[in-house]
Amino acid sequence: MRIAVDAMGGDRGPSTVVDGVKMIMRDLPSDVELLVVGKSRHLKRLFSLKRADHPRVHLVDAPQVVKMTDKPRDSLKLKDSSIATATRLVKEGEAQALVTPGNTGAAMAHMMMSWRLLPEIDRPALAGILPTPTGLTTVLDMGANVDCKPHHLVQFAIMGVCYARDMLGIENPRVGILTIGEEETKGNEQVLAARQLLKKSTLLFKGNAEGRDLMTGEFDVVVCDGFVGNIVLKFAEGFAKFIIRGLKTEVSNSLVAMLGAVAMAPAVKKFGKRVDASEFGAVPLMGVNGVGFIGHGGSNAKAISNAIRSAVHFSKRRVNDRITDLVQENLHVISGSAK
Amino acid sequence: MRIAVDAMGGDRGPSTVVDGVKMIMRDLPSDVELLVVGKSRHLKRLFSLKRADHPRVHLVDAPQVVKMTDKPRDSLKLKDSSIATATRLVKEGEAQALVTPGNTGAAMAHMMMSWRLLPEIDRPALAGILPTPTGLTTVLDMGANVDCKPHHLVQFAIMGVCYARDMLGIENPRVGILTIGEEETKGNEQVLAARQLLKKSTLLFKGNAEGRDLMTGEFDVVVCDGFVGNIVLKFAEGFAKFIIRGLKTEVSNSLVAMLGAVAMAPAVKKFGKRVDASEFGAVPLMGVNGVGFIGHGGSNAKAISNAIRSAVHFSKRRVNDRITDLVQENLHVISGSAK
Repeated sequence: MRIAVDAMGGDRGPSTVVDGVKMIMRDLPSDVELLVVGKSRHLKRLFSLKRADHPRVHLVDAPQVVKMTDKPRDSLKLKDSSIATATRLVKEGEAQALVTPGNTGAAMAHMMMSWRLLPEIDRPALAGILPTPTGLTTVLDMGANVDCKPHHLVQFAIMGVCYARDMLGIENPRVGILTIGEEETKGNEQVLAARQLLKKSTLLFKGNAEGRDLMTGEFDVVVCDGFVGNIVLKFAEGFAKFIIRGLKTEVSNSLVAMLGAVAMAPAVKKFGKRVDASEFGAVPLMGVNGVGFIGHGGSNAKAISNAIRSAVHFSKRRVNDRITDLVQENLHVISGSAK
Repeated sequence: MRIAVDAMGGDRGPSTVVDGVKMIMRDLPSDVELLVVGKSRHLKRLFSLKRADHPRVHLVDAPQVVKMTDKPRDSLKLKDSSIATATRLVKEGEAQALVTPGNTGAAMAHMMMSWRLLPEIDRPALAGILPTPTGLTTVLDMGANVDCKPHHLVQFAIMGVCYARDMLGIENPRVGILTIGEEETKGNEQVLAARQLLKKSTLLFKGNAEGRDLMTGEFDVVVCDGFVGNIVLKFAEGFAKFIIRGLKTEVSNSLVAMLGAVAMAPAVKKFGKRVDASEFGAVPLMGVNGVGFIGHGGSNAKAISNAIRSAVHFSKRRVNDRITDLVQENLHVISGSAK
């Protein structure tokens, strides 16, 4: 199995990607090879400088670079960019999956155009993972689409169930739909119609999830359209930053509090490790006919290495085949004509 | 000026409301009287038990009670409930504002039916307040409506600007629209159309606000439909709870960390005070032709007293008149036919 790694994406540049590759090579299964895609002369120098050379790491040259600020449509014109090349390697069977630390929009555009969608799937979705007191909740779509139709939400639910089951080991994932109240009648038109379809699906549909239920562990999979999902995701980022900065400011005003913070640090770190996004590495673009994990632009080496691990796992578990199976079971509720 | 206080709403019952009334009577302006509405025999006993009697506090009898679980439509049938009576007092000019600790849906239904809307306003909105490093951001709608039209978002922006200016003292509030990217082209159909209207308004429109911008202080007012706003609001609640519980669990595993937590407590408390919802007391239902503040069902005495203070302030500043003025300036963008 070969995983293509886009070395030129991300805010931190190829150096961080090389660090991530070095980190994972220590314990990567012996049947896995990595194809690191980017400006190969530059990469070669980085690998030897960092003593990261490894017999199962191969460089693939891609002279062009998609910048983090490039628009998805413009990025498609760069046919020899690292993301275009990595996508092509998967398309042509030279690699079984790809990992990129962003630009998210450009990466999605390349995968969509090159790989197309799985049978009967109309829209891809970014699957995000939120920590709960007891485990993890998979939330999708985190921002691939806006203005979804009700049956698209059902397709997202199918993908989410496969992710939760095959990647997180949850036997029979409980599915919820994100809305604004507990009662059946609560929600907008899109949600009310999707609810009816989900009730008729073969999934374990447990009803309405409110905003607070995203982190209680009451649901294993929560579906929403990408507009709502992306706002919630970015709000979580902003909220966490606000709390950390606010506490730091207050603590720095008092010596006693600063000493207290030092004493608490290991416990805080342990908690932080549980909720740290880099533990998951990256999120998969689901519903496409290929395996692609997209990291946060600011991905560090640990995030890159964990993303590679996730991509290996996703390919080995044949998650896309499982989606196709579950789609077949639910043909009656996933098309636009479903009632 | 008289403020009607619904003593029977909320999860904590009338005892907490009486505590809140007692708390505020110490420093309420001498031209303000309170009409405490509920089962008057029960309230009379509570007031004397708690030594909360005050010459400017009057009891108004309302034999019926709307429970927190009652549906808004059903609650309207209880014509002699405390919320119905409080709403009527405002309608008939006996009081200038009302405060209730919930049920939110029932309270909104009563105000809407009894007071109707301000001229040219089609939908009311709940205005929420989020803390930022430098001040406060007003976000609306927090859940009064779903499936909004673009011009409704402009109406919310007008209400939000008046709240930020007249209640929070921000001279020229910067307005943003909640969406999923920085560029002009990012958003769903509703947002893209509303953007065009906001650009043509007399408001200081600063463009797209992403989820993370809700707490950076870059915007003073952010508009969204109630579906998105309510999900974000409840997610914030759930997220905060998750962090507090998670940290508590980790800290309780280590004596050193526990001592550290004790040392940090005053700093944490100071920060907590800044972000504590009860500091704001309650949120106004804006756009209705009357002044109504609705608290969280779990409102404590401090929240009740602060809500009363907010209601007094809102009435004295004649915020509704200011909304009507700003509506007149923006007639070209707030009707359904606006282009």
